[in-house]
Amino acid sequence: MTYINEDFLKLPGAYLFSEIAQKVTAFKTQDPEADVISLGIGDVTQPLIPAVTEALHRAADEMAHAETFRGYGPERGYGFLRKAIVENDFLARGIEISEDEVFVNDGAKSDTGNFQELLGKDVRIAVTDPIYPVYIDSNVMGGRTGELGADGHWSNVVYMPCCAENGFVPALPQEDVDVIYLCYPNNPTGTTLTREELQQWVDYALEHDALIFYDAAYEAYIQDDSIPHSIYEIKGARRVAVEFHSFSKTAGFTGIRCGYTVVPHDVTASTKDGQRIALNPVWNRRQSTKFNGTSYLSQRAAEAIYTPAGKLQTKQAIDYYMQNARMMRETLTDMGLEVYGGTDAPYLWIRTPKGMTSWQLFDEMLHKACVVCTPGAGFGPAGEGYVRLTAFGQHEATKEALERIKRQMTI
Amino acid sequence: MTYINEDFLKLPGAYLFSEIAQKVTAFKTQDPEADVISLGIGDVTQPLIPAVTEALHRAADEMAHAETFRGYGPERGYGFLRKAIVENDFLARGIEISEDEVFVNDGAKSDTGNFQELLGKDVRIAVTDPIYPVYIDSNVMGGRTGELGADGHWSNVVYMPCCAENGFVPALPQEDVDVIYLCYPNNPTGTTLTREELQQWVDYALEHDALIFYDAAYEAYIQDDSIPHSIYEIKGARRVAVEFHSFSKTAGFTGIRCGYTVVPHDVTASTKDGQRIALNPVWNRRQSTKFNGTSYLSQRAAEAIYTPAGKLQTKQAIDYYMQNARMMRETLTDMGLEVYGGTDAPYLWIRTPKGMTSWQLFDEMLHKACVVCTPGAGFGPAGEGYVRLTAFGQHEATKEALERIKRQMTI
Repeated sequence: MTYINEDFLKLPGAYLFSEIAQKVTAFKTQDPEADVISLGIGDVTQPLIPAVTEALHRAADEMAHAETFRGYGPERGYGFLRKAIVENDFLARGIEISEDEVFVNDGAKSDTGNFQELLGKDVRIAVTDPIYPVYIDSNVMGGRTGELGADGHWSNVVYMPCCAENGFVPALPQEDVDVIYLCYPNNPTGTTLTREELQQWVDYALEHDALIFYDAAYEAYIQDDSIPHSIYEIKGARRVAVEFHSFSKTAGFTGIRCGYTVVPHDVTASTKDGQRIALNPVWNRRQSTKFNGTSYLSQRAAEAIYTPAGKLQTKQAIDYYMQNARMMRETLTDMGLEVYGGTDAPYLWIRTPKGMTSWQLFDEMLHKACVVCTPGAGFGPAGEGYVRLTAFGQHEATKEALERIKRQMTI
Repeated sequence: MTYINEDFLKLPGAYLFSEIAQKVTAFKTQDPEADVISLGIGDVTQPLIPAVTEALHRAADEMAHAETFRGYGPERGYGFLRKAIVENDFLARGIEISEDEVFVNDGAKSDTGNFQELLGKDVRIAVTDPIYPVYIDSNVMGGRTGELGADGHWSNVVYMPCCAENGFVPALPQEDVDVIYLCYPNNPTGTTLTREELQQWVDYALEHDALIFYDAAYEAYIQDDSIPHSIYEIKGARRVAVEFHSFSKTAGFTGIRCGYTVVPHDVTASTKDGQRIALNPVWNRRQSTKFNGTSYLSQRAAEAIYTPAGKLQTKQAIDYYMQNARMMRETLTDMGLEVYGGTDAPYLWIRTPKGMTSWQLFDEMLHKACVVCTPGAGFGPAGEGYVRLTAFGQHEATKEALERIKRQMTI
């Protein structure tokens, strides 16, 4: 008899974005003429920059000739890409990360989902609330979260609420936790942590022998120079933090698929009898067994982001989205809405008016303005009463969406 | 205190192919002039076919313009690719598979490694011996294999030896097993199963409420029309089999990364209290949480394999490698070696002469002929006394390798 892993059955319903897609499809079926604008799922709309498409063409040409053809790549990713990453994302900021601490992947989602496999089933995780659903869902699959309560909390997960009342700064947990998931600039709230606030988390981890899984997928959107781009800017972080990066939002790679994870040699976990085990070689073993590596073309495309032309064009693409963010902040604030984020992140976090639930506002925005947002409740109980809007739309569509919201909704 | 998943620490040493790479690097450091030819790791050498590189260029152009840019793709993979797969690999062979039973991935390795996550920790797996290491290693990580004995067997895994003595046809297990891993055409032995032999396995699975994980990564190399390309050609298989496909060996995609997995709606596993759960939606939930999808370019490249030009060019590429296989079979047989496989698969399985161990023959072949093979023992205890050679080399290099083996080795 083949038994199923019943932990998978604990997951309620569909993955958040699948659920939204289904609602939108149903709406479109009902009203096929409707011109729906999505500011919901965090997907980019601008084309790849020329530096990247040129790299893709060059790589395709290389693959067309036996002398330059590339088959399986190195397990951690190609040296040319890891070198560019280390030099530009770390050394240039004064951070010492070595090339064999970098693992190229197909985007941050896989690794933020998979990394928990390296840990014991009995480690206690702590998450900010609201939170990117993958962190929790992957731990549900890993059998680590206990039972889901009526309040939307898993019994064995420590939640750190982030809301307007505490300025979206999570408080250090009162209970002992082993793994802390942090994402800054934050998805979904679009807020950031200062260097000092982040230092408190590193100090907590050092003191409690905990790990921090730090998702830096949106660091390229930081405008304020004082905000850390990497947790390794913080003293002591090399001993306690694993950091996840993605080119998805940095350079529009949601369809190209490339990112990377940093596992410093100093990061360890303990066996039951107290032996310290470095996670870098264990992650390498996991990846070389359960992952195929990233397309050669995608790795060459990612390398191109770090060329002088690539850097300039990437900055322009990010500026484009940040113009949207500014316009959205202004318009929605003018409407009297409470708006957070959107200054150092591509996400805006809007308090629902008149005590509406976030799914109510989602429905109203879809049906009245034909605009898709993401209900905050989908990111956790503390996301109730908020919705997320993304700045990844095209200018014209974003402007049109804002005008419709202004015109058609009574907020 | 963050505890490690100690199941990972049970894995002995490195992944087989990492170990071989290290030995080859050490040899090259010692003798930098040596012209090493690798017939070891199963990596292709021929460039991508024109139909594929043209598709890559077209897709790169699409990504360069906002009107045709593609971000996140559908969870199961793009419809255009799943349609081409269903029509060509299944309907054309009279097999009914629907598009939502197909999950596009980044190659067979990830999914053959990850699929076990869906099953309870106490299911008993059975593997042919020798075997592609990922099937076992991923179950070790999943905590399902018990302890590794001195004989190279895991205590909770059922091994089905395949060797010259039984014509490389595994016997049905005497004990109850829940999941059976089969790979045909086989890696590493290069042997196949007849339709009747495969029917016995499907019948066993139906009778014992077991699942078959069928790795069909090498089906494109089948020359003999009577050999099944898919387990779904076998009656009843839709209820018990999950099938893994890869374009890596079909079309030289080891650097492009694309494949697919078939999870028929009829395949189920049981909860502890006897409820049957369809695995298709559970796998979809797993993938949409822990996988990012495959590059749009890779999916367009895979689609191109199914065009008339793509089919013709793919066949030519496979013929190229099968010419190597023929030449290798003939030369090595002429030398008096016992050679298996290589007629419907790109792998040849050679019995070591004079009672040598397979690592001894590996070392001798590397040091005397500068040719890399894969030691059979790396594929499991029953692989001892064999080595694997692959037909994926360039003609000239393969010929040169054979001449060196003939000239420099006393076999």
